[in-house]
Amino acid sequence: MSTRFRVSYPVRFAHCDPAGIAYYPRCFELCDAAIEEWTETVIGVSRSTLHLDMHLALPTVDLRAGFSAPSRLGDWLDLSILVEHVGRSSIVLATDVTSGNETRFAVTFTQVLTCMKTMRPKPWPTEWRERLISFAKKETSA
Amino acid sequence: MSTRFRVSYPVRFAHCDPAGIAYYPRCFELCDAAIEEWTETVIGVSRSTLHLDMHLALPTVDLRAGFSAPSRLGDWLDLSILVEHVGRSSIVLATDVTSGNETRFAVTFTQVLTCMKTMRPKPWPTEWRERLISFAKKETSA
Amino acid sequence: MSTRFRVSYPVRFAHCDPAGIAYYPRCFELCDAAIEEWTETVIGVSRSTLHLDMHLALPTVDLRAGFSAPSRLGDWLDLSILVEHVGRSSIVLATDVTSGNETRFAVTFTQVLTCMKTMRPKPWPTEWRERLISFAKKETSA
Amino acid sequence: MSTRFRVSYPVRFAHCDPAGIAYYPRCFELCDAAIEEWTETVIGVSRSTLHLDMHLALPTVDLRAGFSAPSRLGDWLDLSILVEHVGRSSIVLATDVTSGNETRFAVTFTQVLTCMKTMRPKPWPTEWRERLISFAKKETSA
Repeated sequence: MSTRFRVSYPVRFAHCDPAGIAYYPRCFELCDAAIEEWTETVIGVSRSTLHLDMHLALPTVDLRAGFSAPSRLGDWLDLSILVEHVGRSSIVLATDVTSGNETRFAVTFTQVLTCMKTMRPKPWPTEWRERLISFAKKETSA
Repeated sequence: MSTRFRVSYPVRFAHCDPAGIAYYPRCFELCDAAIEEWTETVIGVSRSTLHLDMHLALPTVDLRAGFSAPSRLGDWLDLSILVEHVGRSSIVLATDVTSGNETRFAVTFTQVLTCMKTMRPKPWPTEWRERLISFAKKETSA
Repeated sequence: MSTRFRVSYPVRFAHCDPAGIAYYPRCFELCDAAIEEWTETVIGVSRSTLHLDMHLALPTVDLRAGFSAPSRLGDWLDLSILVEHVGRSSIVLATDVTSGNETRFAVTFTQVLTCMKTMRPKPWPTEWRERLISFAKKETSA
Repeated sequence: MSTRFRVSYPVRFAHCDPAGIAYYPRCFELCDAAIEEWTETVIGVSRSTLHLDMHLALPTVDLRAGFSAPSRLGDWLDLSILVEHVGRSSIVLATDVTSGNETRFAVTFTQVLTCMKTMRPKPWPTEWRERLISFAKKETSA
């Protein structure tokens, strides 16, 4: 049994391009929605608190994506998130996206906790870091 | 008791602008998502079937929107849809959006069922029209 | 000779929906781009200065749009902006969009100059107001 | 003197997120706009002809992006495109984005010419392939 974090979203009309398939920048928005839910569940902080109250952000500094099959209007996408690495201020998240049993795309994000006032990396608060490590361990032992 | 069609969506990071509030074109995308769900539930046809199989579309020809309070990252928006009028090929939908008990925005859409091949209006199929009329009646009698 | 403010933009792949036509929320983004250029030219302040330095915003509180013909990938859209009314803190802008000689859509925006810290309307600074009135007058006399 | 294909676009309000910086999925849309212009100039075919008349598409199958500095509302971004490799049906495009003399982000796209009816890769037509090779050669000798 896996402890990967999982959410499902439909491919909406707004996500699709003239080729009738999900436009890849919109695919990243769907990953972002999943990461927002993951942040709240795993780190225990909402994006609203993170951005608006704490003036922190989690900008993506590196992104690698592979698209293996197109996604179409009305498809339900199952997104799962795995923590690949927890750095001092950074995190590497692997997002796998399937529909039915078909792999659609996979994105690896490197994000850095950043203070919006100084625009400098901010080390993970101890409590958050512990939750991230604990979540990452549960995954690999699952 | 009202029979208005209701769905709820969160305001995501992707929806927000540099002012930290939901960017109005994105607000329309949230209404579109609600109308997609409404189409499937009330008319009984998915947008995928409508667009990809039947080569029909429901373009917006007229839109009136009022924004009374800003929506912020993390807010849950409650969208409700009311059928105001069913024409020969057209429909007028009123979408009210609240969060908690606060009205956020309201949009009235006039959409026209359109054949994508001819780009001409297409009269509502009888069965769909009956469902729309029946839905509209339940609302007013509720 | 008209003094309406005019800009032209192409309809990009990113703007188009599965029906192959410009998705209406994206049409509003194109109007916003034109209004950004108009703000800088007519009011004499960049959106960057307005938002980031002065902590002001120009949220849309009312919007009326009519779409008379679809716009397609690769079309060049000509947008023109007319000031319909200058209020104490508000402005009514009419945006007409054509391609070739065909009217595509028209949007009337009511926007309110707003202080982002208090979220309250802020009266137009005298100098800005004078420029807006002067621009509106030139239009009608043109 | 370089023969890289170059275009410049401003960062619009619509591109920015609550952190006040260009949201990365929107950065990809800006790259797409540049690639649309490049396609028309270098291959000699508009995206409109490619998609709507020839029923071909150029979906991204692999994407690697690095973001080295944030881009803000009102910044002008200079995008340049380099052909890294021309395959049988594929192309590898390197897009470098700077503002002033600062590197902002770089994206390497692998795209595959695809028949929209069969959803299978389609080999580059001879004439297009020759233009791509010729463009790639001019770059390296420049």
